[in-house]
Order: sequence, then C-alpha cells, then structure tokens
Amino acid sequence: MIGRKITSIHGAGGFETREVIEKLVVSRMPRELWRALDGSGLDVLEDGSTLRINDEEYLVVSMDNYTVKPLFFPGGDIGHLAASGVLNDLVVMNARPVAFMDGLIVEEGFPRRDLEKILDSMTRVLKENNVALIGGDFKVMPRGSLDGVVISGTGIGLSKKPLINDPRPGDKVIVTGPIAEHGATILAAQMGMLEEAPGLQSDSKPLVKTVLPVIEEYRDHIHAARDPTRGGLSVVLNELVYGKDLAVLINRSQVPVREEVRMFLDALGIDPLNVASEGIAVIVVDPSKTSEVIEALHEKGEREAVVIGEVIKPENPIVKGRVIVETEVGGKTILQPNPLNLPRIC
Amino acid sequence: MIGRKITSIHGAGGFETREVIEKLVVSRMPRELWRALDGSGLDVLEDGSTLRINDEEYLVVSMDNYTVKPLFFPGGDIGHLAASGVLNDLVVMNARPVAFMDGLIVEEGFPRRDLEKILDSMTRVLKENNVALIGGDFKVMPRGSLDGVVISGTGIGLSKKPLINDPRPGDKVIVTGPIAEHGATILAAQMGMLEEAPGLQSDSKPLVKTVLPVIEEYRDHIHAARDPTRGGLSVVLNELVYGKDLAVLINRSQVPVREEVRMFLDALGIDPLNVASEGIAVIVVDPSKTSEVIEALHEKGEREAVVIGEVIKPENPIVKGRVIVETEVGGKTILQPNPLNLPRIC
Repeated sequence: MIGRKITSIHGAGGFETREVIEKLVVSRMPRELWRALDGSGLDVLEDGSTLRINDEEYLVVSMDNYTVKPLFFPGGDIGHLAASGVLNDLVVMNARPVAFMDGLIVEEGFPRRDLEKILDSMTRVLKENNVALIGGDFKVMPRGSLDGVVISGTGIGLSKKPLINDPRPGDKVIVTGPIAEHGATILAAQMGMLEEAPGLQSDSKPLVKTVLPVIEEYRDHIHAARDPTRGGLSVVLNELVYGKDLAVLINRSQVPVREEVRMFLDALGIDPLNVASEGIAVIVVDPSKTSEVIEALHEKGEREAVVIGEVIKPENPIVKGRVIVETEVGGKTILQPNPLNLPRIC
Repeated sequence: MIGRKITSIHGAGGFETREVIEKLVVSRMPRELWRALDGSGLDVLEDGSTLRINDEEYLVVSMDNYTVKPLFFPGGDIGHLAASGVLNDLVVMNARPVAFMDGLIVEEGFPRRDLEKILDSMTRVLKENNVALIGGDFKVMPRGSLDGVVISGTGIGLSKKPLINDPRPGDKVIVTGPIAEHGATILAAQMGMLEEAPGLQSDSKPLVKTVLPVIEEYRDHIHAARDPTRGGLSVVLNELVYGKDLAVLINRSQVPVREEVRMFLDALGIDPLNVASEGIAVIVVDPSKTSEVIEALHEKGEREAVVIGEVIKPENPIVKGRVIVETEVGGKTILQPNPLNLPRIC
C-alpha cells in the first residue's frame, strides 16, 4: 500500500521501495522497453543494468542518488560514499568500473571549502581505482529549498559475464566483513550520540581492489552478489530468494558485528541485520568453491570474510522465499525485510 | 572568482558554472582520467561523454539533474523536462537514444498523485521515442530538507560519429525554432505573472524525431550542435568559439522570438538571447549544405528553423572568441555570456 503521500519508508530501500518502483515506475513502461541492447534492466531490478555492446562484453551502468546527513561523518563523507557506492554496485554485478559521472546539487550559500572536501573524497576514490570522471552536472538550489548537498552518481563498467541473481540450493552465503557499521554511525550522528558511542565508524569503502578480483576469478561458481546498503542484510537476503522456491538459512552467531556497533544498536533495540553497510558485499557461492573464495577474499584484504549461512530448498511451504535465522540459543525465526526506517542514510 | 560560498550564479549554466566545474572538479582528476575507452569526457565539456565500444560505434552518455520550480508549468512539468532534456543532450551529440535511468528524490509527504503525473510525463516521452527505462533510484528526504522533487536523469545513446564542437569560418548558424520560451515561462511562473502574460508556454520537447534524423543525414557537414538550455543562446554561442581564433556574427532581427515572449521579457528589460530554451537546437553547418539542412528540418516538422548568423574569422583581435550581434539598426555589439541568473529553471 503506497497511500496518498510519499513517506520516508518508501525511500528506506526495503520492499516498500520496491513497491513504489514497481507500481509507479516499472508499470508505466511497456515490457519491451524494460531493457536495451539485449541486456537487462527493469526485468531484474539489480544494482546495475546491462547493455550488450559487442560479442564479448556488456556495459554495466548503475545510478544512485546520495542524500546522506550529516554530510561528514566518522569514516567518510557524502563524496566518498557516492563514489564508493556507485562503484560497488558495479563490482557486485561483476563489472570492472571504467567511468563515473557526478551530478552535484548544492544549496546556495554552501561553503566552498566543504564542497572541496567532498570533491576531494569523491575524486580520491575514483583515482585510487583508476576510474575516469567523464562528465556530470552542477546545479544550485536557492537557500532553504535543499539541505546542503545531494550527489547523483552514474557508474559505467565492463563485464564479460554480468552477475544476475540466481541462487541455488546448497549455495553458501558469505559476507565480506562486519555488518551495520555505516547505518549505526549515521544513526548515532543524527541522534547526536557519537560521543556516547565512541568507536563507531562508517565502513564506506570501494570494493574494486578486494572483492572484484575474487568475483571475476570465481564468476562461474558465484550465483549472486549484492552490497547490503539501504535495508541492510535483511533486505538483501530476502530479495535473494523472493518469489523463488528457495529460502536462506543464516546463523545469527556467525554474522560478524563489531562490539561497538552491537552495543550501540542493542541499547536502542535495533537488530543489526536491518542496518546498512557501505563497504561489504554478500556473495552466494557454490559449496564446492566456498573455502577457496573465502581464502581469496582474505588474501585480497577482506580478512573478516566469513560464511553466515546457506541457500536451502525448504520442505515447509511457509518459508518459501523467506529468510530463516537460527538464534544463538538454537531457535529459528523468520527475518522480515524490515529496513530500519532511517532517512538520509546514503 | 568563486569566492567562499556557492551562489546561484554558479549554477546558472554560464561561464561561472564552467569555472566551478573546471576549478573544483576537473582540476582534481589527472588528465589521463578525463576520458575512458578512447572516447571523450572532461577534455571537451560537451553535453555528453563518449566511450568507444566497438569498431563501428561509440556509446554516448549524458547526465543532468532537474530542479525546476514550479514542478508543473504551462507546456510541461519536471518529468517531461528531465526526459526531453537528457534525450536532447544525446541528439545534439548525434547519438540515437536507447536507454534512460531516472534518479528520483522526493520530499516526505509529497502527494502520490503529483508524482504519478510527473512519471506519466517522463515515461510518455521515453515511450514515444522508443527509449528503454532500464533502471534508476528512489530516495525520500525528510520534510523541509528538499522542496518537492528533483530528478536526475542519465541517457545512453549510440553514435557512429559523435558530434564534437568544431566550427569553421563560413559555417552558418541555424536555430531550429523560436528562442527563450522555457525560461520566460518559468520566470513568469516564479514571479506569479502567468496571468498577466498569457500565451507563455515552455517549449520542453524531445528532438529525437525532428532534429536527430537531420543531424544524422548531414553529419559530415555539421560542425557543432547544442541545445541552448541554461544560459540560453548567448552561452551556447560564446562556448562555440571560446578560446578559438573565430567569432560568431548573428543578426538580431533574424533570431526568432514569439511576440508573447518578447513582450514579457521586454517589460522586464531581459534580453531573450540570455534566456533558456528546452525544445530547440543550434546547428552549425557548412554553407554549401545550409539550405538543404533548413529544408530537411522544415520537412521533419521544425518549420521555424532559420539561419541566424555565421562563424567568421575576425580581423579585429578584440572579437576573437566572441559573439557579435548586429542590431536592428545596423550597429554591432558584443554579446557577453551573461546567463539570466534565474534559479531552478531546469
């Protein structure tokens, strides 16, 4: 149910966002205009869209708007986040990023120095990953009609074999690092609680050098990859099996969460599974290659990569398309795609 | 001079915008990361960037943010404008649009009905021009932190021979229709003067069916094409010869301006040459083909296309890289790239 007004839950990245996109956007386009050049587009709702450009390769394009508040936070800023986030959407599609375009919208009166800091962060991520900045746009909105800065980013990558969500029973589910760090940090900042929760830091980070080489090498055995940003692990795992004759079974005690993050979220009664990360990936891999993939991730620098569960073919029809969490005490619960309804997390 | 704070003139699309982009963005990237895949990017600052994707073709990508206020205006709305504007940036690069991505940012509490109207307009433009909508993003910002809706659009097109600005002495300068209609309409709306100035209507319109076929057919004789949006004809003509050993000479009495537009702008003392259009193109063509191009434009439906001037090699060094306007009474003036400093025109 969308209702008569757009609310913040519609932008939280969960199933409500999917409903808005499907009902208000996708439904307005005829199916034959959901994709272009023999690629994929609205037919799959992945992090990026693909276009076949020659016999060997696809171009992969991803686009995201960044509205995070505060603009500067422990571990990063909106510029770092925009560049990292857009590149990561290409990485999880198994695409090597080659180009980026930035659309900056700035409130009149915004300090040039802050804008320069943001652009320093954004361009540093691009340079370190050998990604060209090929164009963009610059707009100013009158004072009071925009809170600070928003950045829209378009990323362009190349892939011989883009990754499209195709999990199979028995596949193992890997996370490449501790979860919920970005969301917990932004939440603490928005609540004015950064001092009471020392050690919180966003994990905003491009995965081009650490995760992409592993996805490229093991592409034939990797059946899905996503970055659990808006909506956190909960939404990503639910989308993985949504509408399929499969379920995901994860073990809560195996999901890595740093102590500072856990304590802060516990105090607020928030499940870290619902909280966004900006520097990790979820990788779904054939069981025969799981230990090799974990080892390769460790070697590339993702030293905390770990298996948290698996894809199963459920016997009980009630859990089809759902995510089951084994609790620390051995019970099982169903994990709803229930994103933390936190505005301006990214 | 940028100064310590970003002001609305920096977003007006003129040379101040170019200065911000060059000083704050381009300068932060090493030259070897200004372009990707043997294409063009920050090295030329055109409406779109190109990437060579195979032996025969380039991919052309354009990106723009739309922040227009009011969201609905005579002749269009922000959705119509976003789709048309992004497609037109491809058209003037001689690229055939194949795909579009939309990034929607919506203020919490925004009426669903208005959002649907905007999406109707946007998708109608795409459908009518056979352009696929392949992906995008949807974000919500808290009430008070964004005024209504902004849309970022990314357009993807294909071109065998992209048009890069390369005017030559003797070339004729064509406009495909009357100028300043969009800017005059938005200005009237923002000033609450639409009733006093009846007949004003934005020219927001995709040029895919009317102008693109002509550019494609006469590509080898067309040396530049641009859509005079932010900054109007003045900025586009100045950019055409900026830094070159050339000048543009236009005849003011030949520049088409509808009577309603002229009267409204005259009353405010605003030169229509400084005011944005959203449904016309400026085309610079070899003199030997000018009448054919004009005829072809008329045939495709641009019945008011007309020659307004020419590119010259100036003898007087003071006018190198400048635009000279012959007035109605025979005098000559230099046209400064002086965009009307009007916020949220597109």
